[in-house]
Amino acid sequence: MKIAIIGVGLIGGSIAITLKEKKFASWVIGIDKEEQNIRKALSLGFIDESKSLEAALPEVDVLILAVPVDAICKLLPSILDNISPSQTVMDMGSTKEKLLSLIEKHENRGRFVACHPMAGTEHSGPEAAIPNLFAGKTMIYCDATNSDEDAFETAEALVDQLEMKTVFMNAKEHDVHTAYVSHISHITSFALALTVLEKEKSQGRIFELASSGFESTVRLAKSSADMWIPIFRQNRKNIMDVLEEHIHQLQNMQHLLETEDYPGIYKLIKKSNKIKRILK
Amino acid sequence: MKIAIIGVGLIGGSIAITLKEKKFASWVIGIDKEEQNIRKALSLGFIDESKSLEAALPEVDVLILAVPVDAICKLLPSILDNISPSQTVMDMGSTKEKLLSLIEKHENRGRFVACHPMAGTEHSGPEAAIPNLFAGKTMIYCDATNSDEDAFETAEALVDQLEMKTVFMNAKEHDVHTAYVSHISHITSFALALTVLEKEKSQGRIFELASSGFESTVRLAKSSADMWIPIFRQNRKNIMDVLEEHIHQLQNMQHLLETEDYPGIYKLIKKSNKIKRILK
Repeated sequence: MKIAIIGVGLIGGSIAITLKEKKFASWVIGIDKEEQNIRKALSLGFIDESKSLEAALPEVDVLILAVPVDAICKLLPSILDNISPSQTVMDMGSTKEKLLSLIEKHENRGRFVACHPMAGTEHSGPEAAIPNLFAGKTMIYCDATNSDEDAFETAEALVDQLEMKTVFMNAKEHDVHTAYVSHISHITSFALALTVLEKEKSQGRIFELASSGFESTVRLAKSSADMWIPIFRQNRKNIMDVLEEHIHQLQNMQHLLETEDYPGIYKLIKKSNKIKRILK
Repeated sequence: MKIAIIGVGLIGGSIAITLKEKKFASWVIGIDKEEQNIRKALSLGFIDESKSLEAALPEVDVLILAVPVDAICKLLPSILDNISPSQTVMDMGSTKEKLLSLIEKHENRGRFVACHPMAGTEHSGPEAAIPNLFAGKTMIYCDATNSDEDAFETAEALVDQLEMKTVFMNAKEHDVHTAYVSHISHITSFALALTVLEKEKSQGRIFELASSGFESTVRLAKSSADMWIPIFRQNRKNIMDVLEEHIHQLQNMQHLLETEDYPGIYKLIKKSNKIKRILK
């Protein structure tokens, strides 16, 4: 199968590595607006060649969009304008409502399969691409019934190669849920990094002490602004709801500390320990 | 060397495993108020026997306190009352100001070495104890000049076996810094778990999606209330300062989202990315 990947960074690159390794992809065309990303991807060997989207599109069986969500919204409509009935296009974006409403009435809507892999690291760029990034993780298909059956089957065969579990959701539900289990984690990490960096100005030695607990809560603060700003923009309303609830929980904790209500804090910790049933 | 460890959980157990493995400890006495912890520690083989503190104290070269910080404050004064000039006592607690002021004038103050290993996991109990928990991590010595030279040398030889880097601080400085690089991370994880658990009530499927990013920011919410309440109590003032700053950072983010000031958010993310220079 001949595959083009737009965006040869962490996600696009990791997909390419696995599809080539498993020989699902016989040829991978990399497309990226950054010339140096293409050079790195070629030298890392996970793409076979690079060309423009216009030149690549007529040649491939599958086109994968692995760029920030604003770029996906910009590119997808014209890709659908030019797609043939035997081709499939998939995205890997973190938000879906805006994107899917944008192409809802497109005559080639059926050729598109909306995907969101719940996998990643805090690193970005071609050198961040790794084998097995997706194995055992969850792929969300959004509004899958609006995809043509054969397009969905092609996407499914590809995701199968990545060894992912699959979940089906509608776009609205997807955007609410990811606000809770992904987007808010990035906001709290950014804020925690800023809190501690602020303090470091007056207390230089602070980071000698950083423990693995701190590292784990703050590692997402290394994430790329170019990727996250469009997500915050497109999922703003849901993220604001979660952020409001999260600030409320922190203020509650603050109030209990202020009034030295330790039995109250004890109850909250015990309640939050219930996360054990979900995270092993 | 004969060693007694009070508290045979994650920290005490992991110390015992390494000291026995390296044959630094010829005999380890476990002391724990939970009978079942003793049974587990004996069956896991990292303690050789168990007896009361009163019976163990006269027999050992080193006594290690690896219990919650309120229990350390309760136990240490009477241990110092009964200690001989050839013995050393160390603690592994997360707060130091209260403890060290409590024993400041004790005639045997010099036999005590205040230690805080910046290492741990979100798990607790004897079965959470693991080899290499401490290797490469940082051990903080607090107010080390108030320890007798030979007591400090004994502690140093022991910490050397754990393969830790060492840092020296005074107690006040220690409690401020740990509020920033450890205690606040636990508060944010507890609050994030509560935020999402709250939502789960109405949206049951939410956790099918939990990504590794979410898992990493929320894993500390599995931590033990019995360990953390005493830390929050003893380091309340510093923790409240950090929490206030952290809520302020989140409210700032909230305001920028509300007003759709994306250039402002971009700047904040870029600033928080500076955490890369500290965390590899």
